[in-house]
Amino acid sequence: MAQSFGVIGLAVMGENLALNVERNGFPISVYNRSREKTDRFMAERAVGKNVVAAYSLEEFVASLERPRKILIMVKAGGPVDAVIDQLKPLLDEGDILIDGGNSLYSDTQRRAAALEAEKFTFIGMGVSGGEEGALNGPSLMPGGTQSAYQYLEPILTKIAAQVDDGACVTYIGKGGAGHYVKMVHNGIEYGDMQLIAEAYDLLKNVAGLNQQQLHDVFASWNKTEELDSYLIEITTDIFTKTDPDTGLPLVEVILDAAGQKGTGRWTVLEALEAGVAIPTIGAAVNARIMSSYKSERMDAAQQLTGPSKQFDGDVQQFIDKVRDALYCSKMCSYAQGMALLKAASEKYDYDLNLGECARIWKGGCIIRARFLDKIKKAFDEQPDLANLLLAPEFKQSVLDRQTAWREIIVAAAEYGIAVPAFSASLDYFDSYRRSTLPQNLTQAQRDYFGAHTYKRIDKEGVFHTEWMAESV
Amino acid sequence: MAQSFGVIGLAVMGENLALNVERNGFPISVYNRSREKTDRFMAERAVGKNVVAAYSLEEFVASLERPRKILIMVKAGGPVDAVIDQLKPLLDEGDILIDGGNSLYSDTQRRAAALEAEKFTFIGMGVSGGEEGALNGPSLMPGGTQSAYQYLEPILTKIAAQVDDGACVTYIGKGGAGHYVKMVHNGIEYGDMQLIAEAYDLLKNVAGLNQQQLHDVFASWNKTEELDSYLIEITTDIFTKTDPDTGLPLVEVILDAAGQKGTGRWTVLEALEAGVAIPTIGAAVNARIMSSYKSERMDAAQQLTGPSKQFDGDVQQFIDKVRDALYCSKMCSYAQGMALLKAASEKYDYDLNLGECARIWKGGCIIRARFLDKIKKAFDEQPDLANLLLAPEFKQSVLDRQTAWREIIVAAAEYGIAVPAFSASLDYFDSYRRSTLPQNLTQAQRDYFGAHTYKRIDKEGVFHTEWMAESV
Repeated sequence: MAQSFGVIGLAVMGENLALNVERNGFPISVYNRSREKTDRFMAERAVGKNVVAAYSLEEFVASLERPRKILIMVKAGGPVDAVIDQLKPLLDEGDILIDGGNSLYSDTQRRAAALEAEKFTFIGMGVSGGEEGALNGPSLMPGGTQSAYQYLEPILTKIAAQVDDGACVTYIGKGGAGHYVKMVHNGIEYGDMQLIAEAYDLLKNVAGLNQQQLHDVFASWNKTEELDSYLIEITTDIFTKTDPDTGLPLVEVILDAAGQKGTGRWTVLEALEAGVAIPTIGAAVNARIMSSYKSERMDAAQQLTGPSKQFDGDVQQFIDKVRDALYCSKMCSYAQGMALLKAASEKYDYDLNLGECARIWKGGCIIRARFLDKIKKAFDEQPDLANLLLAPEFKQSVLDRQTAWREIIVAAAEYGIAVPAFSASLDYFDSYRRSTLPQNLTQAQRDYFGAHTYKRIDKEGVFHTEWMAESV
Repeated sequence: MAQSFGVIGLAVMGENLALNVERNGFPISVYNRSREKTDRFMAERAVGKNVVAAYSLEEFVASLERPRKILIMVKAGGPVDAVIDQLKPLLDEGDILIDGGNSLYSDTQRRAAALEAEKFTFIGMGVSGGEEGALNGPSLMPGGTQSAYQYLEPILTKIAAQVDDGACVTYIGKGGAGHYVKMVHNGIEYGDMQLIAEAYDLLKNVAGLNQQQLHDVFASWNKTEELDSYLIEITTDIFTKTDPDTGLPLVEVILDAAGQKGTGRWTVLEALEAGVAIPTIGAAVNARIMSSYKSERMDAAQQLTGPSKQFDGDVQQFIDKVRDALYCSKMCSYAQGMALLKAASEKYDYDLNLGECARIWKGGCIIRARFLDKIKKAFDEQPDLANLLLAPEFKQSVLDRQTAWREIIVAAAEYGIAVPAFSASLDYFDSYRRSTLPQNLTQAQRDYFGAHTYKRIDKEGVFHTEWMAESV
């Protein structure tokens, strides 16, 4: 009796996805490079389940029905190539390899092309939702060989998170499209997390809210159509925890130096290559770097004093303005992420359906949020929408809140609180909505010192001026 | 009679450097792939000068005294490798190849290692100053094989720009150090240009200054110790030009879409890889990308209205505050660039002398400025200074101006003028001087959804919490 689905790699994400597949009625085979992990899995979590443990790749491959569907859950990079190389001699034409790790989209592109040339099929699948999502319903972003998707669809639609308009999975596009969309998802996640951190900083250190008040504010925000989301929800939870050792709020004893797993940085690198502006996401990545300078900052804090202004405004009004600033900034961040996807779709010929991308993020993943439904609708109505800020669903909502948003940027500058992602968002908005930016001067300078030439606003052509003043 | 120095590639930079070398008393040979350029050079600019024209690389190499000193001035990338490959069979041990183009430092690193392994020597030399600098005295940043530098020093110290404390050239460090420092120089140049553009935007579009007033303001700023610099000087010149066709200020008919040659972007990419925060330079690169969205912006301007606030303040006070904001922002940008060099020096073992880097930028190059002398002194006094903002020379100057700086950020937000580089600088300052940033919340979130663990502020170790609230 052949098994329906195979999983290679039994770290926690692999185990959880395997159990998710089995729970949904598909008998599975598992393989792990070290025998111990397989044994432990079989002795513990797999007990009573329809799981075949294989102790060699030959045995593993032989246990699977054809076309074989093999999910590879190993560390991104070299290990993925190694597993593929070991598997290839054992496979038959049409067998389907799925890389469910956090691979760089260009690696996926390369692997898909190489495997397709050898008559295999390859799916690079972004998986979001962390350990819990993997087990109970993640958001899945599969891309690669399109013909393979029909064999996976029955399984993936079962294991994915379910929302009102279906399962959080869709065929994303060819080549590295799935991992590309996952990368941008993670970039947006970086942006969301930084924006929440800045809101927290302002509420705590300008308005002076305590732990209970912070909890109450985030809990109330999580009931609004604009901000209802997983990240706001877990922030609400975080403020319920007290550290048993010190009696302090647990969050306050955590070191303020944030790590990064690389996908946020990849998004910024890729946007630079593609010539797409994603300043909010860039500011978020940068803020994590700044946070890592803990000892330098502790030194600098002794020497670089800021303003001494004390808050004497209305606390509830301030909270509401921070909420509006968070919403507007978040809109800019999503606008940037979606603009990057739009550019990638053209650059790599992915033919992305941006409405579907937003839809499959509605459940399972870290950035799941109620307002993604409106983003989906915006792109369903206008698939070639240039920028989310121009969608009827969003335009007015930002314009209505811009005064509050600006007041929060003003307050941050006056109180000396860094708000790099809030600021980058407002500057994005104020640049995007300007028909004329001051880069005419930049172009004049470049032509002055480097004869780079310039264009004019009133006629075609390329111009150069001898700028040196006769007498200055 | 053998020539002292050879130049391959007679585009304008190559020609100008060749003529600079010859003018300083060193007989030269030149070679260009297409014969026409060589003929034209010999018939025009080289007339009456000690120049040998070679029409084959064999002839060219044979004309040079040993060790041969050959400056390659061809397009960065493949063409440099091609020239090196063609030259190698013709060279003798110890001959010196110099790449004076805008090569990526990692290419230079690779080429230096390969050539050194074959007993040749290789210098990757950053050249700044544009066409005019190349002819009359550039800033030179040579790195690579240290033993080769003694042969080049007599020539390079003559052709470089001369300032009060010597020629604007020094041996930078091994491998790709010279091109690395040039890359960061260009990143800083991007920052300076964007900051000037933002100052111009505020002066013109908030305070309503006309062309003559803008000229006068920049001319007066160019007389201050803080801002006296080449880029302020050329900006002053730019505001003297009127467009003969329209009678408008010439700068106002130039299209506000800025190009980029890539080195600014490289700096941002490299900083991301190195984990160094350079948000001002990042904002500058990003602002050029935003400027390129001209047609999208013209659409958006119809739909996204900003604030309608009219300026009614004191114009001179506003001008002075913009000047202070420009200065403080510029300091942050230089602090970021120097911090990146410090990190690179450790990462690549370049052993950079940061005071010397600042010194050789005092003349010849695009970012030449009076205040580089103070940067030089700051690093001479404290070679391991963590951040320029902490140098006694600068700390107080920024603290004294921070109120004005904050007021300009406030004004920009209230008037709806995008100031991405001003903002990024203030946020850098306000992050750097904070002993506690809000990334403790980021770490709590990461531990919540991904079990990424966290550190504590009060004890060693790595911790994980089951965050899920029992009842929320």
